[in-house]
Amino acid sequence: MKPINVGLLGIGTVGGGTFTVLKRNAEEITRRAGRPIRITTVADKNLELARRVTGGDVKLSDDAFAVVADPEIDIVVELIGGYGVARELVMKAIENGKHVVTANKALLAVHGNEIFAAAQKKGVMVAFEAAVAGGIPIIKALREGLSANRIEWLAGIINGTTNFILSEMRDKGLPFAEVLKEAQALGYAEADPTFDIEGVDAAHKATIMSAIAFGIPMQFDKAYIEGISKLDAVDIAYAEQLGYRIKLLGIARRRDEGIELRVHPTLIPAKRLIANVEGAMNAVLVQADAVGATLYYGKGAGAEPTASAVIADLVDVTRLHTADPEHRVPHLAFQPDQVQDIPVLPIEEVVTSYYLRMHVEDKPGVLADITRILADSGISIEALIQKEAAEGESHTDIILLTHQTVEGKANAAIVRIEALPVVQGRVTRLRMESL
Amino acid sequence: MKPINVGLLGIGTVGGGTFTVLKRNAEEITRRAGRPIRITTVADKNLELARRVTGGDVKLSDDAFAVVADPEIDIVVELIGGYGVARELVMKAIENGKHVVTANKALLAVHGNEIFAAAQKKGVMVAFEAAVAGGIPIIKALREGLSANRIEWLAGIINGTTNFILSEMRDKGLPFAEVLKEAQALGYAEADPTFDIEGVDAAHKATIMSAIAFGIPMQFDKAYIEGISKLDAVDIAYAEQLGYRIKLLGIARRRDEGIELRVHPTLIPAKRLIANVEGAMNAVLVQADAVGATLYYGKGAGAEPTASAVIADLVDVTRLHTADPEHRVPHLAFQPDQVQDIPVLPIEEVVTSYYLRMHVEDKPGVLADITRILADSGISIEALIQKEAAEGESHTDIILLTHQTVEGKANAAIVRIEALPVVQGRVTRLRMESL
Repeated sequence: MKPINVGLLGIGTVGGGTFTVLKRNAEEITRRAGRPIRITTVADKNLELARRVTGGDVKLSDDAFAVVADPEIDIVVELIGGYGVARELVMKAIENGKHVVTANKALLAVHGNEIFAAAQKKGVMVAFEAAVAGGIPIIKALREGLSANRIEWLAGIINGTTNFILSEMRDKGLPFAEVLKEAQALGYAEADPTFDIEGVDAAHKATIMSAIAFGIPMQFDKAYIEGISKLDAVDIAYAEQLGYRIKLLGIARRRDEGIELRVHPTLIPAKRLIANVEGAMNAVLVQADAVGATLYYGKGAGAEPTASAVIADLVDVTRLHTADPEHRVPHLAFQPDQVQDIPVLPIEEVVTSYYLRMHVEDKPGVLADITRILADSGISIEALIQKEAAEGESHTDIILLTHQTVEGKANAAIVRIEALPVVQGRVTRLRMESL
Repeated sequence: MKPINVGLLGIGTVGGGTFTVLKRNAEEITRRAGRPIRITTVADKNLELARRVTGGDVKLSDDAFAVVADPEIDIVVELIGGYGVARELVMKAIENGKHVVTANKALLAVHGNEIFAAAQKKGVMVAFEAAVAGGIPIIKALREGLSANRIEWLAGIINGTTNFILSEMRDKGLPFAEVLKEAQALGYAEADPTFDIEGVDAAHKATIMSAIAFGIPMQFDKAYIEGISKLDAVDIAYAEQLGYRIKLLGIARRRDEGIELRVHPTLIPAKRLIANVEGAMNAVLVQADAVGATLYYGKGAGAEPTASAVIADLVDVTRLHTADPEHRVPHLAFQPDQVQDIPVLPIEEVVTSYYLRMHVEDKPGVLADITRILADSGISIEALIQKEAAEGESHTDIILLTHQTVEGKANAAIVRIEALPVVQGRVTRLRMESL
């Protein structure tokens, strides 16, 4: 089937990730989309970089405006960032009747109203899953998954840089400035980290989410924004003593009087799931009237996680253009003729780890016998507890955690262990996954 | 605009919830869907119940087969459950060219291949978000949100009854049988809990997820299923000592040799987010090659959470039928002419709680002065720490957590506190949300 043609603007981190994932998973993505998604042209000022990343497989151009005017291109992917040339390119692409996929939260938060109005008028899609929380499909969840609900509020850890810094400040008791330097050295913070640490990036994302959650225009200029650069490590410690964690949250709440839209360091009860989102991870918690609270968690940045969202949008647009409406999204995700008959394995062939509990005579050599059987079966031990026998008892419990093995081997070893005269009764066997 | 007509089969828990939410949020749902979604007919054997729940607003029928044959009906919502009459009704509805929305995981896991083939042939949609993990939009995430990825494995807490029982066994150290009785008394477990506690329900859901994650047919009959009824409380305690929690997981993993599809009690490292999903909540963790790990969390059962998923499917089908393809899903979730100009409130009008830290002279009466100011401002105190001054120091820290108040009031109180001669320097003020 005829491929859908994509013009990719910007071959930086996310552009490179998009190119790589689209190539690596081409077969699987085509099975889902119903049609190959082909990057026809890559535009970047740095042609050398573009050549290196693409391996010269595609047309290269240093003129992005030529790409958005190219009649062969169906979808323009804008990964340049910022409000300047990116805005002009997106508006031109729309004007030329192209669908647009973008990861540009700043552009949408600030100029989204104008962009969506133009797209609506022209009958093209502007898809932006990658603009909020990277690879987490939160835009789709808010826009489609929760469409039955009156959304009451949402609160998100939507900036990985600041969450990494806050996690480190708490774990190591270090001041902000020191952790920021560490984050920069590790590549978690940019050389000029202002947009991240001052909360501007989070406010862009909160603005976008508020619009789709409540059905209101983008109002970024009204958002209250406070970052973490003035946060004192002592407050993180006091908060901890009181049972709280401090996170930089983007919050949007609907009240009778209007909308609260705000980004600031926030104390959250430490027991909440979202309080335990650490490091560079993102999470968005949504409170809605029918479903209650739902939470979406994953990597909010990085080449491939963001590419995952960009390509999901490409698949969405492609499905729309390929199938008749009734078949837009295949029932089972993959096109019906692309379902594969892969067998389900019998449980004996499953690979997992085990928790084994056995009741044994409390005498020397028992543990040696048991571990010998496991070693003979090629099963290695990760951890072990041997209880002392209680006063007056001749037997005690041994608990073993194994490394991964094939279930059939574990079963055979258990039979041999149960046959030992020093082992009383059956071995309790539970499976274990490190996830 | 002409409403889309829905025939609702079964007015039990989920049917009642669907009716209620669709009525309560009619305005908002119409703004999203672009067209009213109207329940035209409700079919249930128990007409008295149907009358009570619907208030007689709609046509009632005790003949579901007449409803699936009714030419006025566009979408059939099947909420009867089981494989018997539900299967016949779904097949008849498809045969009659109706779209189907169903929450019936048993039916899809066992007869899904036949049902989807018929739907494909007839050009109708069979939507089933409600079949897995209630209100969590996990089907949409797997089918659309992660379409760029090669999904490697998924693991889910997808049965609330068993998760509630396991949480209680751990918290209270009680045996399975006792907690099951409690769960039944609380309505978390059914009178005949077999499908839940023996893992069959979780296996239905894991089967459905495996199909859309890997592009394979439903293979429920090949799933390995082990429930929690034989789980010993002592193993929960030992696991805890070793740093693990035991959860009933539904696992689907792709290996070169084939698919692992299994449900069993599983040890998970206690630090993992999914290990901290407690009570009747559900969560699904998905590992995919580009995005990495993402997690989806929420209520997996109950009238309104499940209704949320049923109605999301209704909106999906309606959007498809209403708009031209380019406008299927509105950019900002709501139809463009339905965006509302609700103002964003200034930060002074935001309602939140506060953490206040102040450095004060360590002498009697200081705390009384401060709490008096807060009381005068109508701000009540939730918690307080007053540090003893360090040896030889004349000053110490007071940390206060307040209940909710309007930011403007908090600011005014802070100004007054800072003006007290016993208070040194500025008050540190952080916002706090209980989420």
